[in-house]
Amino acid sequence: MTEPAYAAVDWGTSSFRLWLIDRAGQVLAERRSGEGMLAAAKTGFPAVLQSHLAAVEAPDHLPVLVCGMAGAKTGWVETGYVDTPAPLAAILKQAALVPGELRDIRILPGIAQRDANTPDVMRGEETQLLGALGLDAAGEALVCMPGTHSKWVRVKGGIVEHFSTFMTGELFSVVSRETILSLAVVGADDAEDVASFKAAVVAAFKAPAFAANLLFTARSRQLLFGGTPAAARETVSGTLIGVELAAGLSGAVPKAGVTLIASGRLATLYRLAFEALAVTVQPIDADEAVRRGLSMAAAAIWMK
Amino acid sequence: MTEPAYAAVDWGTSSFRLWLIDRAGQVLAERRSGEGMLAAAKTGFPAVLQSHLAAVEAPDHLPVLVCGMAGAKTGWVETGYVDTPAPLAAILKQAALVPGELRDIRILPGIAQRDANTPDVMRGEETQLLGALGLDAAGEALVCMPGTHSKWVRVKGGIVEHFSTFMTGELFSVVSRETILSLAVVGADDAEDVASFKAAVVAAFKAPAFAANLLFTARSRQLLFGGTPAAARETVSGTLIGVELAAGLSGAVPKAGVTLIASGRLATLYRLAFEALAVTVQPIDADEAVRRGLSMAAAAIWMK
Repeated sequence: MTEPAYAAVDWGTSSFRLWLIDRAGQVLAERRSGEGMLAAAKTGFPAVLQSHLAAVEAPDHLPVLVCGMAGAKTGWVETGYVDTPAPLAAILKQAALVPGELRDIRILPGIAQRDANTPDVMRGEETQLLGALGLDAAGEALVCMPGTHSKWVRVKGGIVEHFSTFMTGELFSVVSRETILSLAVVGADDAEDVASFKAAVVAAFKAPAFAANLLFTARSRQLLFGGTPAAARETVSGTLIGVELAAGLSGAVPKAGVTLIASGRLATLYRLAFEALAVTVQPIDADEAVRRGLSMAAAAIWMK
Repeated sequence: MTEPAYAAVDWGTSSFRLWLIDRAGQVLAERRSGEGMLAAAKTGFPAVLQSHLAAVEAPDHLPVLVCGMAGAKTGWVETGYVDTPAPLAAILKQAALVPGELRDIRILPGIAQRDANTPDVMRGEETQLLGALGLDAAGEALVCMPGTHSKWVRVKGGIVEHFSTFMTGELFSVVSRETILSLAVVGADDAEDVASFKAAVVAAFKAPAFAANLLFTARSRQLLFGGTPAAARETVSGTLIGVELAAGLSGAVPKAGVTLIASGRLATLYRLAFEALAVTVQPIDADEAVRRGLSMAAAAIWMK
């Protein structure tokens, strides 16, 4: 095994991922856990990080680069933001050093959009963008990054010009669990119902103002016509994603299509949604993108 | 005090209201409680009803007319639906007798829209419509009935032609309490912030597809620019109501404007929302409407 050059950490609200990486950018070891910002704020950020570093036998001097919510006000060390229009290259220049630690630990900043009408913030996605698009990507990209708080980002010549956060994932979670629709969804197995999902995407895309009504049909359809809990769940999911796509696709879409940065089940769902609307996507794996973004930043900081 | 002729009950999901009414339609006594369908399903519908009848000293033989969720599958006695196009006059002809009771207790049916694309159901609002519009209202009305599950109803010549349920009230409740926006809203006092509310209504009305983004600005605006928890709450409320109005007003609006059947705080909020969009409303008190609807039905059933 080659020597590790640094550890890269994606520290989200509810998830923690660490990679041990060598000089050539190869992954030597990986850790995943649910000790995100919310959990670590209670147990202590240094202890969580150290336990994972110890588990991969990282040397004491190994530097660590972190992105995500660990840099939020409620995180470990607040790192501030790069303001839009934000060159992706600026992100790796503004990493904040965590004080009082033996090893060199730095946290990357987020991006802020200080516009009174469309205020917005991101933390973690800027590193995914860096990894997905590179430091000085030519041309224009419209990027969709699905999640608890989905981001739609317009990047031009390596500069983040504008972005919008949609609470799609979180809305799905509370609507399917905490409202009357939980009665329609309860007991749903993992069986996919692509037809119900795509139909809901198209209906919501065509009439986004009817979102709160289309959601309710997940229950009324079951009451009047029957139908499985899985179909109801796909209606809720498809409606919320369809409304997000109606907004995200309301501006100009580049010829190459939408750059979709996603992993796992979300990648599958969003690919189906774009397919239902006959919109081309360029899929990029989100896990790989964030690791690549962290590696690019680490190389710039420690391997000049 | 004159003799009571019947008791009228509006039995909703989470509220119970009873009026003791004489032959002339005058209210002799009133009861309000939180023993709605959800609570009564546990403690027993007959016991809840009897306790309120005893409290107003109703005679043993007094008939009782009920509307609302007591007639749902999960209620007391399932009463079925009148299907759209539904003459309001048909509602009072299909009241179901509660079996095994000493007194004459009847529950009014709901209305169902058995359309595969826009399936929908109502229980309770049909009685409000009856009271607000009368049995054979001439002309066309576009009715907005705000609530946990708001209803928008098109009535023509006394016939309910089409309606749509919007989960606006329930969405407000879960979004402001169970999502990240709870951090922005927590500690909000009752102070009104009409400017924030109206601005959110207009923004969401203009760009309903951006609903899940406009909601998030309640948090990002506070992070980047500050602002009170009350302003954040009004942004959430105004966004959800603005999207509902974009859908509700997407068809033809009668010359006289929208018939707004609402009470209390919801009546105030919706009046402000319509005002922000310069749409005329004909306000009708929801409590009075349901009582009048129950009285009309009771008169038709027992006082021919």
